[in-house]
Amino acid sequence: MLKTEHIGIAVKELANAVPLFEKLLNSQCYKTEFVAGEKVNTAFFKTGDTKIELLASTDPEGVIAKFIEKKGEGVHHIAFAVADIYAEMNRLKNEGFVLLNETPKEGADNKLICFLHPKGTNGVLIELCMEKK
Amino acid sequence: MLKTEHIGIAVKELANAVPLFEKLLNSQCYKTEFVAGEKVNTAFFKTGDTKIELLASTDPEGVIAKFIEKKGEGVHHIAFAVADIYAEMNRLKNEGFVLLNETPKEGADNKLICFLHPKGTNGVLIELCMEKK
Repeated sequence: MLKTEHIGIAVKELANAVPLFEKLLNSQCYKTEFVAGEKVNTAFFKTGDTKIELLASTDPEGVIAKFIEKKGEGVHHIAFAVADIYAEMNRLKNEGFVLLNETPKEGADNKLICFLHPKGTNGVLIELCMEKK
Repeated sequence: MLKTEHIGIAVKELANAVPLFEKLLNSQCYKTEFVAGEKVNTAFFKTGDTKIELLASTDPEGVIAKFIEKKGEGVHHIAFAVADIYAEMNRLKNEGFVLLNETPKEGADNKLICFLHPKGTNGVLIELCMEKK
């Protein structure tokens, strides 16, 4: 893994969460983006070399809405940047980790992403992400 | 905030979690430390400019043991490095955030720390931390 790329936080509404995180972090949200595949609106903050990504569902049946229904708002995933997502997916599969998608999919922020099943990672949903070329 | 300093992950046992995270991150745990005040054993990994801190309780009544009992293993807190923890605690208190300790306390890794109540931060337990001089 190259670095912790971002921490994804599930929130009910960006309208409340963005100003709150601006106060908390004492810095401005620098980008918002709708990710169609995941049915989420995202909002990004820079915290050093790592980003905070707020995630709000646009669909009551969406994965983030379901997460909040079950667990409440809070940290949803940790994303690690990788140099070659295909090689890293292969390495982790061989190590016994369970991939939630067998081929990389489109994420926010110009990334190809893959999630690992949290049952194999001490309850933490892990995302691998690679900048698209 | 200067940067995301680390992500704290509550685990039942370091004996299992450390080798698992070594495989996941493809890097070695570089430090373990017992934090008496929090009744936890910690294990650290470098992921770029941010660390992963695994936390295992040494006491069934400890805060990490109670967290796992209630929510299961998973992300426990996000820690942001600050230049002046006293000034930042004051700023956040004035912004309406609720501090869980009114004076900084001793954390792992040579830090003074303060937690913010997750009810005021979209369910995320936030730690402020400052390197001790």
